[in-house]
Amino acid sequence: MTEQVKYAIQDDYPNDFSHCYGCGRLNEHGYHFRTGWVGEKTITIYTPKPEHTAIPGFVYGGLIASLIDCHGTGSASLALHRKNGHEPGNSKEAPRFVTASLNVDFMKPTPQDIPLKAIGTPEEVHPKKFRIHTEVYAGDTVCAIATVTAAVMPKTFIQQKDC
Amino acid sequence: MTEQVKYAIQDDYPNDFSHCYGCGRLNEHGYHFRTGWVGEKTITIYTPKPEHTAIPGFVYGGLIASLIDCHGTGSASLALHRKNGHEPGNSKEAPRFVTASLNVDFMKPTPQDIPLKAIGTPEEVHPKKFRIHTEVYAGDTVCAIATVTAAVMPKTFIQQKDC
Repeated sequence: MTEQVKYAIQDDYPNDFSHCYGCGRLNEHGYHFRTGWVGEKTITIYTPKPEHTAIPGFVYGGLIASLIDCHGTGSASLALHRKNGHEPGNSKEAPRFVTASLNVDFMKPTPQDIPLKAIGTPEEVHPKKFRIHTEVYAGDTVCAIATVTAAVMPKTFIQQKDC
Repeated sequence: MTEQVKYAIQDDYPNDFSHCYGCGRLNEHGYHFRTGWVGEKTITIYTPKPEHTAIPGFVYGGLIASLIDCHGTGSASLALHRKNGHEPGNSKEAPRFVTASLNVDFMKPTPQDIPLKAIGTPEEVHPKKFRIHTEVYAGDTVCAIATVTAAVMPKTFIQQKDC
């Protein structure tokens, strides 16, 4: 299986939308999740830090949910970008999605000290909305199964200051 | 509405189960979420740090999911502890739960620079399993609606090193 993501969609997000704590390349404190294609599947790889524990030896569920969240929006962006004739790395700005819903079933305790791989299958449910079916692997074992529904970021998003 | 949680269930988790990145009082890098009762509701309050952005001015969904996750397990612990005749702060060790599933609907962009309040309603669905219905408020506005299903941490959890 792929061990690193060479061309990530997050590298092609506009600068103004690259400050996400999960996947923003310009957020110096964040996780820097990076999502790319492997054939028709999407992949995000991340090795949790020692402090990302639930109990010692096992990964914090909130970190896994965060990985799934950005993997979902990244996968949706990849899917729409490809539909528009583009691939990450070809210097075209990629569309930015927001998460409408996040559903995670935690199947097994997730061990520390191993790269986690989120593998996604994007499904178009509307021209501006994708559903991403994701499995999170630790080694060969599926530790979480998830669905993210992501929508193209509305232009009104950044004006909605009242919540 | 309550502005701080005086007696938090996380203060009564056993030391071995207090290293969670979200809510462990012994995790020096973590968020230190704290969950208590307000009548029959549960509450967790957290003000995101400046780096916890989705885009500048708005809170990262993964941070909100993390808040909901630990609020869910904390609320389940509160509910079972109360059922067993105990309240947080009375020096009895509290039961530790794990998250079985996490479902979040993001209703509105969540503004930075304001305390977030997760308000929960615990529902017993099995003697060792609770469903927590949660609304996350920024000011008076509900920004996320969520359901967490949490189960008492199985004794086998810490032996499952194969995933």
